[in-house]
Amino acid sequence: MSDRADFLSRLEACLGAQSVLTAETDVEGFVEDFKGRFKGTALCVVQPGSTEDVAAVVRLCAEHGVPLIPQGGNTSLCGGAVPSDESGRPVILSLSRMRRMRTIDAVNGTMVVEAGCVLKSVQDAAAEVNLLYPVSLGAEGSCQIGGTISTNAGGTNVLRYGNTRENVLGVEVVLPDGTVWDGLRGLRKDNTGIDLKQIFIGAEGTLGIVTAATLKLHPLPSCFSLAWFAPSSIDAAMRVMSMFRAAASSKLSAFELMNRTQLDLVIRHVRNRKAPLANSADWNVLVELSDVREQAELDDLLQDLLAQAIEEGLILDAVVATNDSQRAELWEVRHSVTEANKSAGIGLSTDCAVPVSAVPQFIDQATLAVRSHYPEMDIVIVGHMGDGNIHFIPTISFERWKAIDDKSAVSAGVRRLVNDVAHKLGGTFSAEHGIGQTGVLAMADYKSDVELRLMRLIKQAIDPQNIMNPGRVLPR
Amino acid sequence: MSDRADFLSRLEACLGAQSVLTAETDVEGFVEDFKGRFKGTALCVVQPGSTEDVAAVVRLCAEHGVPLIPQGGNTSLCGGAVPSDESGRPVILSLSRMRRMRTIDAVNGTMVVEAGCVLKSVQDAAAEVNLLYPVSLGAEGSCQIGGTISTNAGGTNVLRYGNTRENVLGVEVVLPDGTVWDGLRGLRKDNTGIDLKQIFIGAEGTLGIVTAATLKLHPLPSCFSLAWFAPSSIDAAMRVMSMFRAAASSKLSAFELMNRTQLDLVIRHVRNRKAPLANSADWNVLVELSDVREQAELDDLLQDLLAQAIEEGLILDAVVATNDSQRAELWEVRHSVTEANKSAGIGLSTDCAVPVSAVPQFIDQATLAVRSHYPEMDIVIVGHMGDGNIHFIPTISFERWKAIDDKSAVSAGVRRLVNDVAHKLGGTFSAEHGIGQTGVLAMADYKSDVELRLMRLIKQAIDPQNIMNPGRVLPR
Repeated sequence: MSDRADFLSRLEACLGAQSVLTAETDVEGFVEDFKGRFKGTALCVVQPGSTEDVAAVVRLCAEHGVPLIPQGGNTSLCGGAVPSDESGRPVILSLSRMRRMRTIDAVNGTMVVEAGCVLKSVQDAAAEVNLLYPVSLGAEGSCQIGGTISTNAGGTNVLRYGNTRENVLGVEVVLPDGTVWDGLRGLRKDNTGIDLKQIFIGAEGTLGIVTAATLKLHPLPSCFSLAWFAPSSIDAAMRVMSMFRAAASSKLSAFELMNRTQLDLVIRHVRNRKAPLANSADWNVLVELSDVREQAELDDLLQDLLAQAIEEGLILDAVVATNDSQRAELWEVRHSVTEANKSAGIGLSTDCAVPVSAVPQFIDQATLAVRSHYPEMDIVIVGHMGDGNIHFIPTISFERWKAIDDKSAVSAGVRRLVNDVAHKLGGTFSAEHGIGQTGVLAMADYKSDVELRLMRLIKQAIDPQNIMNPGRVLPR
Repeated sequence: MSDRADFLSRLEACLGAQSVLTAETDVEGFVEDFKGRFKGTALCVVQPGSTEDVAAVVRLCAEHGVPLIPQGGNTSLCGGAVPSDESGRPVILSLSRMRRMRTIDAVNGTMVVEAGCVLKSVQDAAAEVNLLYPVSLGAEGSCQIGGTISTNAGGTNVLRYGNTRENVLGVEVVLPDGTVWDGLRGLRKDNTGIDLKQIFIGAEGTLGIVTAATLKLHPLPSCFSLAWFAPSSIDAAMRVMSMFRAAASSKLSAFELMNRTQLDLVIRHVRNRKAPLANSADWNVLVELSDVREQAELDDLLQDLLAQAIEEGLILDAVVATNDSQRAELWEVRHSVTEANKSAGIGLSTDCAVPVSAVPQFIDQATLAVRSHYPEMDIVIVGHMGDGNIHFIPTISFERWKAIDDKSAVSAGVRRLVNDVAHKLGGTFSAEHGIGQTGVLAMADYKSDVELRLMRLIKQAIDPQNIMNPGRVLPR
């Protein structure tokens, strides 16, 4: 159709032909997610190199009513950055070429980076000036800053440093009409009306395209003290966590939980991983303290607290990392769960968070619910216990999964059981992964009418044409 | 008029007559701010006792198109909570009767409190279970939680714990149509669409009425180590701050700056305040470290850092508090500035924040600008240097002020000079006090068209009748 050809030639006139991809081989890496679970078709992929280019593309799309899907490192776990159907209508806007680090201000503790910067490269640039950008997660080698902001990424450092939201001081956004909002302030305090950046953080690209951000940096910790231990029960783990929080305060940087099934999968399926403790235990915790100096003080604190917990019968066994390589080894056990679980079967993963105090109830009740309906499933549990975010993953062998007729009914049914438990305990069905395509129905199930109405009012006000990542986040 | 009488009788039917105040003597404490600088008239003052009562009042106001002014402790510094004119139309909705602390969950580190709870009572309730609600400011004995949330209050603990925004996990809001949004979640992680609470925090009551909140609590620090020192220059103060930040990280809980003029005013005008150092210095800094245990370690850290800074010639003189009463005494010097400045003359106070790295330039340039236009003014400087928030206060004697014809032109002119400097350095004219009535013109001066348009779109979407605190925050 000539409309399509006309639109594409206008895009090419804007960006140059080399930045507008239409050939199937060129676009295939963009229309499918990295896990190969979501795939659709697109009109084209554009790769703008600057904020002005992004604005020009958005203006053109607004004029033609063409939907836009912003895409960063394409590491979404819920199909947030790829087309969801075969309409072939949307333009995928890749931020990958926008990877300039514009400025770094070590005294203010801020850096301004473009959306396409890979998270790892931002962490590295901060570390070069002895500062820390604390957001850290499995995909950090490929996910991009724009994506982490649009999804308010979490990860393993939330306990100490908060989510991405708490580490963003300003954003630059191309709005759905192509206007550029320069909100790149680097201020700790600014009370001048609605804090606009907040609506774009976590909006998953439905309100505009984040093209750059001012990030908050922290003093780089240089001392770490880490232990792996087996609590005598999940309640004991809770009590140990309270002890650590009270005595270590913000020096407590990780409190990660794993059940026996999860640890067994890591040992079995991932090469070179070995069990941290001599005897296998029902529950495993990795606890880490970090600080900017005085390694000995930090070690003493960890030892004191562990000794106290052992004396109180809360801990059955523990091992303390005595050097950096032991520390890395224990973290590798934690970081190997995704790889292990892929080999173990089909994991119907969930991403609930509950109030920290409700973690034991959540685990008990979700286990009971899944066990009673699906006794053939193994329960794999791994989570950021310190912030109440537990990945509860009912897992089934490949053979058994193959034999199931209505796979999507089973997968939806299992997740519903787990999410219902979290919801009843005042929790959420999506702590850190976001909504994308997969969570839209759950939004209808778990968010109140008032909340959905408020979100729709804001969406309509800012994107009245509904061209920004349509069909995501909000149920129809 | 009978419309008025009809409306009032419907209000009384909702709330009971004793909760609808119309007599002049009953309303006078509500129509004027605590400093006596802003005054207007109101149709009445209502004192609902529950969220349902608030919702009923708002529904009635929506039906009759009557504007509402929510009011907490009435401690706004910019006329945010009192009527601005003599129309006599608005209803003042006082939250003072809603002061229930609904729940406290020590393991989750959260408490749910109603909007009318006084900040100090919330701090005390948290301390009873060995936890800290960190928002702390001069008015804490009378300001209310709802007001601190609606203004995103700052204070002296922002450096360590962030603004109010960072310490609120959930809110309950009565929307402009009288619907109640129950957003009282107590989760550290919840990525399910737009984070709606963020638009109400800092909106100064223009989008709805915050009736309750879930607050985030922290481990209660039990060790404090504090010093007062004279840096050799403002640049030296910056370097000392960087040293402290790098070596103490989140143990650094205050870094407060005062110039010689400010300290002199405190000594001269406030009874029982004495100079911390033997010799008067151009600049004074109060630095505080805090932690949950190991007083000796904290003291050592402070002493080490001070010694290092003295050796490098960055500090001329210093005194370390060796016990709690010395510590309290030094803090009292800092906390006495408002009282001192009231006696000293007319202070044209400002509330700028700039990037921390730009604090010396801000002080230099603002001093130069004010001195060259108003050589008769003293420059009083007091601020939260650690987060870039400097209260730069050109001050003039009562006699000289009396002699000025066009006082509002002088006051606007002085503030404009200071705010312009901050703006050019990437700063803001309102770091922690908010907009209220006094900042509305500055919003037009300093916020971009894009920002104002986005704020208006959100305001129109959520309060299409414009009944929530009309005329505040957004310029016409």
